[in-house]
Amino acid sequence: MFRHVVMFRWVPEATEAQKVAVSNGLRSLPGIIPSIRAFRFGPDAEVNAGNFHFAVVADFDDLAGYEAYRADPTHQAIIADYIAPISAERAAVQYETQA
Amino acid sequence: MFRHVVMFRWVPEATEAQKVAVSNGLRSLPGIIPSIRAFRFGPDAEVNAGNFHFAVVADFDDLAGYEAYRADPTHQAIIADYIAPISAERAAVQYETQA
Repeated sequence: MFRHVVMFRWVPEATEAQKVAVSNGLRSLPGIIPSIRAFRFGPDAEVNAGNFHFAVVADFDDLAGYEAYRADPTHQAIIADYIAPISAERAAVQYETQA
Repeated sequence: MFRHVVMFRWVPEATEAQKVAVSNGLRSLPGIIPSIRAFRFGPDAEVNAGNFHFAVVADFDDLAGYEAYRADPTHQAIIADYIAPISAERAAVQYETQA
């Protein structure tokens, strides 16, 4: 399995509506991108101080599946229209793991 | 489901042996901490520039399961003995998600 993990910190001015728009956009992707095997995202639960604000974990069979996701135009539009305008910081890792 | 996601950047001086010790330590945890439902970690695949170096995604039934993991003494020892000495930067999110 090939897993993509990404986290964001939002800018302090980010509104609740802007954050909801990110989730609503992401929610559409598993129905659009056939290489997605699992897709779970959400806002930080605020259990620990100092955390990032939002995480996405996306699973694929292999690197090619991830690359199809990365290049997908709907995904790219969500990044450009909803994520980039409120993103202050981004942290990402992709890794191979046992199924 | 309650998911814990954490990433690290290692210090430039971190040796391969030190990085392997992190993975070896983490590998023991699912056999020790009963609240772990899924546990997948690994080094960054180096597909994208600017990434963090290592990610851990741990799944639990609920917040209490995560808190048991967070407090577990073997887990704490792995952090103190293997992770902290080579960690330059840490990014974390915990979030609720659909099973």
